[in-house]
Amino acid sequence: MYRGIYPGRFQPFHLGHMNVIKWGLERVDELIVLIGSAQESHTLSNPFTAGERIEMINGTLREQKIPADRVILIPIPDILMNGVWVYHVKMYVPKFNAVIARNPLVNRLFREADFDVLEPPLYNREKYNSTLIRKQIIISDPSWIEAVPEFVVKYVKLIGGDIRLKEIAGTDKPLERK
Amino acid sequence: MYRGIYPGRFQPFHLGHMNVIKWGLERVDELIVLIGSAQESHTLSNPFTAGERIEMINGTLREQKIPADRVILIPIPDILMNGVWVYHVKMYVPKFNAVIARNPLVNRLFREADFDVLEPPLYNREKYNSTLIRKQIIISDPSWIEAVPEFVVKYVKLIGGDIRLKEIAGTDKPLERK
Amino acid sequence: MYRGIYPGRFQPFHLGHMNVIKWGLERVDELIVLIGSAQESHTLSNPFTAGERIEMINGTLREQKIPADRVILIPIPDILMNGVWVYHVKMYVPKFNAVIARNPLVNRLFREADFDVLEPPLYNREKYNSTLIRKQIIISDPSWIEAVPEFVVKYVKLIGGDIRLKEIAGTDKPLERK
Amino acid sequence: MYRGIYPGRFQPFHLGHMNVIKWGLERVDELIVLIGSAQESHTLSNPFTAGERIEMINGTLREQKIPADRVILIPIPDILMNGVWVYHVKMYVPKFNAVIARNPLVNRLFREADFDVLEPPLYNREKYNSTLIRKQIIISDPSWIEAVPEFVVKYVKLIGGDIRLKEIAGTDKPLERK
Amino acid sequence: MYRGIYPGRFQPFHLGHMNVIKWGLERVDELIVLIGSAQESHTLSNPFTAGERIEMINGTLREQKIPADRVILIPIPDILMNGVWVYHVKMYVPKFNAVIARNPLVNRLFREADFDVLEPPLYNREKYNSTLIRKQIIISDPSWIEAVPEFVVKYVKLIGGDIRLKEIAGTDKPLERK
Amino acid sequence: MYRGIYPGRFQPFHLGHMNVIKWGLERVDELIVLIGSAQESHTLSNPFTAGERIEMINGTLREQKIPADRVILIPIPDILMNGVWVYHVKMYVPKFNAVIARNPLVNRLFREADFDVLEPPLYNREKYNSTLIRKQIIISDPSWIEAVPEFVVKYVKLIGGDIRLKEIAGTDKPLERK
Repeated sequence: MYRGIYPGRFQPFHLGHMNVIKWGLERVDELIVLIGSAQESHTLSNPFTAGERIEMINGTLREQKIPADRVILIPIPDILMNGVWVYHVKMYVPKFNAVIARNPLVNRLFREADFDVLEPPLYNREKYNSTLIRKQIIISDPSWIEAVPEFVVKYVKLIGGDIRLKEIAGTDKPLERK
Repeated sequence: MYRGIYPGRFQPFHLGHMNVIKWGLERVDELIVLIGSAQESHTLSNPFTAGERIEMINGTLREQKIPADRVILIPIPDILMNGVWVYHVKMYVPKFNAVIARNPLVNRLFREADFDVLEPPLYNREKYNSTLIRKQIIISDPSWIEAVPEFVVKYVKLIGGDIRLKEIAGTDKPLERK
Repeated sequence: MYRGIYPGRFQPFHLGHMNVIKWGLERVDELIVLIGSAQESHTLSNPFTAGERIEMINGTLREQKIPADRVILIPIPDILMNGVWVYHVKMYVPKFNAVIARNPLVNRLFREADFDVLEPPLYNREKYNSTLIRKQIIISDPSWIEAVPEFVVKYVKLIGGDIRLKEIAGTDKPLERK
Repeated sequence: MYRGIYPGRFQPFHLGHMNVIKWGLERVDELIVLIGSAQESHTLSNPFTAGERIEMINGTLREQKIPADRVILIPIPDILMNGVWVYHVKMYVPKFNAVIARNPLVNRLFREADFDVLEPPLYNREKYNSTLIRKQIIISDPSWIEAVPEFVVKYVKLIGGDIRLKEIAGTDKPLERK
Repeated sequence: MYRGIYPGRFQPFHLGHMNVIKWGLERVDELIVLIGSAQESHTLSNPFTAGERIEMINGTLREQKIPADRVILIPIPDILMNGVWVYHVKMYVPKFNAVIARNPLVNRLFREADFDVLEPPLYNREKYNSTLIRKQIIISDPSWIEAVPEFVVKYVKLIGGDIRLKEIAGTDKPLERK
Repeated sequence: MYRGIYPGRFQPFHLGHMNVIKWGLERVDELIVLIGSAQESHTLSNPFTAGERIEMINGTLREQKIPADRVILIPIPDILMNGVWVYHVKMYVPKFNAVIARNPLVNRLFREADFDVLEPPLYNREKYNSTLIRKQIIISDPSWIEAVPEFVVKYVKLIGGDIRLKEIAGTDKPLERK
């Protein structure tokens, strides 16, 4: 069996992420989606908890009829030493063969640790972009609705995620570490 | 949908754990298996990495034909403050309704946080006991083979887990924090 | 007895804070002043130690003849997970009923955890503003003297706090985490 | 003004502690009670939260008519480096002159940092002993009631502290770090 | 014997650092070079690991025929509490008498802890400047080559340090903590 | 150049350690002595600071006329995840080829990471044993003097290390984490 990991923060999960997962599933038998910065939530850069991000992704996979036994979701907290990040990942996930990522540094670190690197195409980066989507939510620009899966739109509204983001943005950010 | 979480360290995953999962799946729609002390490995109490424990559980669920879309595995690192543990768990996992546990303190903490508590029966605790199983592996007592699922036996041998445990036990434990 | 907590960083303690304490003492029997980021000191954003901030507040309370048995000061270090912050606070302080805060996110988090929220009026935010006061101290603009209690003026000078702030500002900030 | 600090864990606060506070108040103008291991709770060695320990001490001080403006309670979390503990303490508390402690190492460390050391007498150590008191609570031996202030007896029962301790003791200690 | 410490991050080690070491060796018997932020690597501000920085400095000392028994290199990780930094340093290094630094805050903190302060001259700060050198490497401006010792040029190229820096700069900085 | 690392805690540095260093220097060009648990001091298991341990080793190397340019001492703090320890070490030290250790787990972890393993002979383990030496110091049994280099005897007495150890042992170990 050939397994790949796909690391990201998914704040929130958008159609670019969705496309990478589909692209990856054509190339690996099993795909591990690594939900990074799992310890973070309720900040401008990381508004959603790891649990909420798992729900967004799981709900979308169901909506898209992607078989549950081909994708594993694993939340992973940050580590203080970047230099050992690849090995930190290895401790948290089942054995894998490849990483799916475009970032040149990530790719080099995994290549040096003897993993295959699969570089996915860029999917409409101007629109499918988490930083942009968070900004749109904050200023009530509805464009973000077309950048995320239908399930994510419903889910973010259900949990009041849009209101939470506006509250975080409208404050002195007292919960953001300085 | 009614969701339950089942916390444990699964060092290693044994038939008692397996029975609790089956018992739980009769009572909840979706079961979240929470793999605790995820940051630990290579010590006497925690020989296996989180990734290896995920493989043990996933492989057994397949062997037992348990549908992959009814069980979610989530590794979770320890937190330094026990008093907030329930809320730490809430950040890492999708929304849930109940906890499956026998431990009276765990049960009280979750009850105080307004969760249902489902207390599973005891399944042959004298035999299905992780501490005992680790000791049997160390002294080459083959009884452990009957206490864990077939998949776990194969998997532990495949990764040399039995040799690793003996190496840890045979040393001054220089990697164990003092 | 009805108890409220009032969270802040108090870098330094100014007349806006003083007014909130007085306002709060009209609404609760006992007020817990929560001194956040207690582990920080000697940086541009957090020049004063927790101990120094306790002295500023205690000295001012005495100057103002506020009875010592109605106010409790509690320093509290930051936590890495914002999502559990409310519960972290609950571990460090005596049982309380209400939070005194204007921040919409803080207010929502405490409301979700079943606390009352008391929103104090804004007291001359243009002048009573810690960030501004720190800047004035650095550039030797004496306006800050009118924005803090008399005791704080004397105390900051006594411990050389103004010189410390200028030293921090005049450097490459080698002690500031990057 | 001459200030002293009195460090302890107060798990729970007992009559020996009470006597040291009274002894100390005859020797210093203001006494800072330092509540150590503030981040801990819900374990065999540290069953009570910092907030609960503050309540025990504050309630007893009131019961004993000790003036609130002569005692300051400060919770302080553990630090990973023992060698800098004295300086960690200095950051958390107002300026002080003396430490009240019997421990020879603590005394030497503070003496080396130029503090006075006040060594209190031993008050019935066989009976006024936190470890013993926790054991008595667990086995329902009522002797502990005579070893703690009346307020603490009432308070522990009010919050169900005795039941909590028994629950912790009766389990596999899954929340205790290994 | 009179010992001095010289703290820095050395990202990378440049001719200004080299000159300070020579200047220091004329004033102390033994010089301890303290390599700060030792846990960091692979970020824009801290591209090199502690081990790589040790190699840069050791190689240059050899190239310059500086006797190995007069210089000690000690990597030291950051601490979360700035206020105890001087004492944290004292734990990691042999007993020393003086600090070599220009930063006014660092100098005051060490002076308060009873150390001598030796303030070195400024050596061509416009050119010998780590932040500038990292930028030059990123944009392929060869000026940096004249700002670092010959050994460092060769070493950075040998380990592909210039390529690494460009990779870090050309990405969304997913490994940089937010 | 062929480099080896020799990991240990050196609490205190004894003749067994000294012999391993000599044995190692016959097999490698440069030897990196890795001083583990660098953040610890003032406990029963780790009485000496990293700085003190560096002084013990450096002083002995001089006494033994071992050239300073063949040995590099590097203090390294513990990491919370054992599974990535080898890679944590790689970040802190210059590039190396081999590890010198007898511990079977350590040896396997380094072998899996493609390092050579050099297993030194056992040098009088009954006598050259740090745990035993610490006990002898505590009970004033002078046998320890023959188990450590002459320099270490003088150094421990100079800094009052024997008195410190007795003080730690004679207390309730209030600084030892529980």
